[in-house]
Amino acid sequence: MRIVILGSGNVAFHLAKAFCEKKIPVLQIFGRNETALKEMLEKFNIPYSIKELSEADLYIIAVNDDAIAGISKTIISENALVAHTSGSLPKEILEGNYRKASFYPLQTFSKSKDLTYADIPFFVEADDEKDLDLLKDLASKISENVMISDYEKRKYIHLTAVFACNFVNHLFARAKEISDSQNIPFGYFLPLIDETVQKINEIEPRSAQTGPAVRNDQRVLKLHEALITNEEHLKIYKTMNESIKKMYEL
Amino acid sequence: MRIVILGSGNVAFHLAKAFCEKKIPVLQIFGRNETALKEMLEKFNIPYSIKELSEADLYIIAVNDDAIAGISKTIISENALVAHTSGSLPKEILEGNYRKASFYPLQTFSKSKDLTYADIPFFVEADDEKDLDLLKDLASKISENVMISDYEKRKYIHLTAVFACNFVNHLFARAKEISDSQNIPFGYFLPLIDETVQKINEIEPRSAQTGPAVRNDQRVLKLHEALITNEEHLKIYKTMNESIKKMYEL
Repeated sequence: MRIVILGSGNVAFHLAKAFCEKKIPVLQIFGRNETALKEMLEKFNIPYSIKELSEADLYIIAVNDDAIAGISKTIISENALVAHTSGSLPKEILEGNYRKASFYPLQTFSKSKDLTYADIPFFVEADDEKDLDLLKDLASKISENVMISDYEKRKYIHLTAVFACNFVNHLFARAKEISDSQNIPFGYFLPLIDETVQKINEIEPRSAQTGPAVRNDQRVLKLHEALITNEEHLKIYKTMNESIKKMYEL
Repeated sequence: MRIVILGSGNVAFHLAKAFCEKKIPVLQIFGRNETALKEMLEKFNIPYSIKELSEADLYIIAVNDDAIAGISKTIISENALVAHTSGSLPKEILEGNYRKASFYPLQTFSKSKDLTYADIPFFVEADDEKDLDLLKDLASKISENVMISDYEKRKYIHLTAVFACNFVNHLFARAKEISDSQNIPFGYFLPLIDETVQKINEIEPRSAQTGPAVRNDQRVLKLHEALITNEEHLKIYKTMNESIKKMYEL
């Protein structure tokens, strides 16, 4: 099977790397950012082009959501299967006379951060059974966790991920602003953060809740509000505490 | 040194367990909840009382913030050092004619969840050098990470921990409500959550931010807002995204 990856960002990089590790040949990486493409050529020995898209059996479009439709038009082969990697778009966003599919890895990707691909859940979608099997087989070579999911389900998976990953990371960033402001090394908090996550592997997050809001500890809540000087911090502080109180009917 | 722990909750339990593991003798655990005290007697072989507080050299008060002042009055010995384990109270909350101190472990404790005590940062505070050394030595037997911290610093440590732990856990609980509503197993998200945390051990959280808000992806933000049916979820969604946009000046 001739595979082409379109894109040169974080997702394209990690797909290329995962395929390379599993010795799955990739015919070409097609993109605009030649520096990034050269890096992938060097690292994973995959040819690239910024001009001519090779003919292939499977095209995987791993670009930002708003670039998917545009780049999908450059694929003219009618015999191909074309999949995008977005969690928040239907496969019908793809514009062309080919078979449309979705190949969605549920993970947060940064080029500089290594990943264990076997752990990453992959959600695949295609119109016919044969294409679905093809995508499932391909994903299964990388990951131990491959599932079928249509767009209706995928968009909720993506929304859940925004709460559980993107917002969580932002809380870390805001927390670090507070500790930085007092010259407290953020490293002090890493064991606590690690434990917070380890806990929910064993306990329901609802049952694992600790802190002043779930104790309805008005003194500490007021103390913290008085300590906070940043308006955004205060908004987060109040919103999260209100939500905690509502969840536990306090 | 004769050590007495006051309390029978999560912090008292884990302190007793840590002392037991390191073969640091504890003379008594004093508390109200006899079931919990009996459990600690059985598990850690530490005598308990619900009526008579033994005379000791060091009393560690590991109870909820609002119970500290009350229980501190039961200590009548003037020769003792008395420390509480709260992150959000000064040592002066303690009411008695003894030497006052703080012994604050930065961690989230649940009885049912085992911990690696060596990783837990301990922050200690006392009025004189000798007491400070005593608390540092004691904490160092449990943890590799012992620091001195006065109340001014400690309350910011606690505030940071609320953002980085309590609020993060609440996001997990809210995320699970979304995935539950669509019959999506929350286990799918554990590798993503794990990676979100692993990442900030290597990259600044500010630089690790991903998701629709930091891309200023209006389509996905609107899609998600339309998917959300729970009012509290929507408030969190909007507050967090606004804060992300402010941080990156979008």
